[in-house]
Amino acid sequence: MSPTPARITAVDTHDIRFPTSRELDGSDAMNPDPDYSAAYVVLRTDAADGHEGHGFAFTIGRGNEVQVAAIDALRGHLLGRSVDDLCADPSTLNRDLIGDSQLRWLGPEKGVMHMAIGAVVNAAWDLAAKRAGLPLWRLLAEADPEWLVRQIDFRYLTDALTPEEALTLLRRGRQGSGERTARLLERGYPAYTTSPGWLGYGDDKLTRLAAEAVADGFRQIKLKVGADLDDDIRRCRVARSVIGPDIRMAIDANQRWDVGEAIRWTKALAEFDPYWIEEPTSPDDILGHAAIRRAVAPVKVATGEHVHNRIVFKQLLQAGALDVVQIDAARVGGVPENLAVLLLAAKSGVPVCPHAGGVGLCELVQHLSMFDYVALSGTTEDRVLEYVDHLHDHFLDPVVIREGHYTAPTAPGFSAAMRPESLARYAYPGGQFWAADLDERKKGQAA
Amino acid sequence: MSPTPARITAVDTHDIRFPTSRELDGSDAMNPDPDYSAAYVVLRTDAADGHEGHGFAFTIGRGNEVQVAAIDALRGHLLGRSVDDLCADPSTLNRDLIGDSQLRWLGPEKGVMHMAIGAVVNAAWDLAAKRAGLPLWRLLAEADPEWLVRQIDFRYLTDALTPEEALTLLRRGRQGSGERTARLLERGYPAYTTSPGWLGYGDDKLTRLAAEAVADGFRQIKLKVGADLDDDIRRCRVARSVIGPDIRMAIDANQRWDVGEAIRWTKALAEFDPYWIEEPTSPDDILGHAAIRRAVAPVKVATGEHVHNRIVFKQLLQAGALDVVQIDAARVGGVPENLAVLLLAAKSGVPVCPHAGGVGLCELVQHLSMFDYVALSGTTEDRVLEYVDHLHDHFLDPVVIREGHYTAPTAPGFSAAMRPESLARYAYPGGQFWAADLDERKKGQAA
Repeated sequence: MSPTPARITAVDTHDIRFPTSRELDGSDAMNPDPDYSAAYVVLRTDAADGHEGHGFAFTIGRGNEVQVAAIDALRGHLLGRSVDDLCADPSTLNRDLIGDSQLRWLGPEKGVMHMAIGAVVNAAWDLAAKRAGLPLWRLLAEADPEWLVRQIDFRYLTDALTPEEALTLLRRGRQGSGERTARLLERGYPAYTTSPGWLGYGDDKLTRLAAEAVADGFRQIKLKVGADLDDDIRRCRVARSVIGPDIRMAIDANQRWDVGEAIRWTKALAEFDPYWIEEPTSPDDILGHAAIRRAVAPVKVATGEHVHNRIVFKQLLQAGALDVVQIDAARVGGVPENLAVLLLAAKSGVPVCPHAGGVGLCELVQHLSMFDYVALSGTTEDRVLEYVDHLHDHFLDPVVIREGHYTAPTAPGFSAAMRPESLARYAYPGGQFWAADLDERKKGQAA
Repeated sequence: MSPTPARITAVDTHDIRFPTSRELDGSDAMNPDPDYSAAYVVLRTDAADGHEGHGFAFTIGRGNEVQVAAIDALRGHLLGRSVDDLCADPSTLNRDLIGDSQLRWLGPEKGVMHMAIGAVVNAAWDLAAKRAGLPLWRLLAEADPEWLVRQIDFRYLTDALTPEEALTLLRRGRQGSGERTARLLERGYPAYTTSPGWLGYGDDKLTRLAAEAVADGFRQIKLKVGADLDDDIRRCRVARSVIGPDIRMAIDANQRWDVGEAIRWTKALAEFDPYWIEEPTSPDDILGHAAIRRAVAPVKVATGEHVHNRIVFKQLLQAGALDVVQIDAARVGGVPENLAVLLLAAKSGVPVCPHAGGVGLCELVQHLSMFDYVALSGTTEDRVLEYVDHLHDHFLDPVVIREGHYTAPTAPGFSAAMRPESLARYAYPGGQFWAADLDERKKGQAA
């Protein structure tokens, strides 16, 4: 008698919020006071190995409960699923979630519902990688290209990328992957840091942190801009004088501008040699990004952290709107949709420099860049992965930065798991931190 | 002593679901079994007039609870607001909701969170129109153009439409509006009907309903297509033979196709002289729609019911991707964002033929088309408003169709209010209908 096959037996969700707004960490022209948060999900099984799948959507505070509710709405697609089948072919889950026509109406493939699907799909890939005993980047890099292609939903992509073209790219990417794996394990993947450049930081803090970044081996920093042009001119001048001419300095407007304003403002900062202008306008404005790019060259145009799906990335590339593709691990529908975007970028020859920071986004997205290097684009030239030094201590397998590089993870999985004590302490509103905070506020009101 | 100014005192939300999937009403190539639903909101005040503001997001079943949770997340922006101030300048609410940076992260301006904002903003406009003693179309048509322009958020639009241009369009639209109001009150606004063409209906039902539509005075019908080409050819032939050559027949693929497939399939149906092909592919695919339009002319291309904001509409028009703009009253951020889309369309000279059906979408969107006719585009030429004969009996001020035309509403407000007994009966899962349904299922399982 064969044993009962293992099933998914529970889908636990957690509303986790960190009070980051109190230090102005993460402040930018559109987001003055984010409380970095995660709508966190754990897939539990009755398998003897005890592995769990962890995933999350990243939000910045209010509304995190809506994101949790959206993950809860997917529970019916998960409970009772065979773990072996899921890990052998995660695309089955992807297809069921994206294909739920009633839930689809809430997007389609965008916003809260799509991020919920991304969280759950990423949790399934975390589980699959743990069961395979491999860090996710390695599972992807060593997977059969035909299997990888089957993981991807090519709907709405075939005018730009067919499964056959994807297979060719992946097979080509496999050549020399052994050497690149060795190099990655030795040197890591190049990072840049946004930590000096938050809008809420004063010039002294900017100066100190920018100097530290260079001393720490980073070859690129990033400054938030877009609230006040005079301030931006001053801050860019300060930063450039600290880092010198050879370190790249990206600037990031976080969607603050209309098209004309983006062009004028970027040109006004051009004397400080910004490497790219990031999110100059709405992430939905494909044609607007194309117009901005034509006008501000040689400053490059970057976007993607708020691009909601592969269809928008497809068009950004078709329209020649981007110099830099910035995927985010937790905005789109998880690993398979990001594979599609990596393939679109590879076909176009446009470098991918992921968005990270937030809660656990560095932990996740490093796997995708490392896969891209080892087994798809095959290069780190003009590729850098964002690094922000927040909140890593809440993770069981936090990123490790060495001389401006991400160290390749070796632990099995997607590095998504948070520490149980952090989940307990920052649960909203009942965890110890928030309960004590509420007590303080009550006392303050009574006084 | 002046009386205390009236405030919003409660934001009631309701999860309302109708079991429409059981009759295959509303079935199409992407949505085989919708349960038409509303995440419904009521703004209550302590004003002596007793007026309430009603609004809703339309969904098709599962996940409606997520949509309700998103509306709940907006409560803090509503409670305690001055009713006089809100009704004098509803844009203040709009700005606060769109400008909540933490909630913005969940979109931005798309999906569940944006539809929640739309529901609440529409409820505020319902309240404003009731307090003004005017149906919404008339409040809009008679408003000071400068005030109307101030209601609109031009962020991300100014490369296509400036406030000054909008003001010019509105002032021009006001010329002759008195005559058009009289004509509208006399004749109504032209409708077309989708009722014959649901994919789940057999040829006999299609034949009967198409003949009835023509007899009832409709000059256009619509057929769902996209699941099976042979079926579509047969159904289009049946419908065309019933309605004759002079009645327009639109076809609607509900996002079923990739770009190449959309072109091939539409061409294969061209012999039946379809007036437009609706939602041929992803609503996010601006460049895809443009490519399809170039290839399938003279068949027109229509989309919009799933277009999530003004920024995507702007680009659809910039790219020459559309012949017909299909606004939806409950998908974008409510009345002011739809005003922006009407203005963009008016500037481009592209007709607006709104999406309706669902739960209460006809009731809402008629006001926007009537405003467009009376005080913006000034014409009904090539303009038709979708009509579907479902679920109107649940509304207190249901649409009235006469000889293929919507009759202009005269009751104050946005026609959004559902009957209290319907709210009670179809509340999910606790209302009488669903409670009884659950009982039945339990008995069925026990038997």
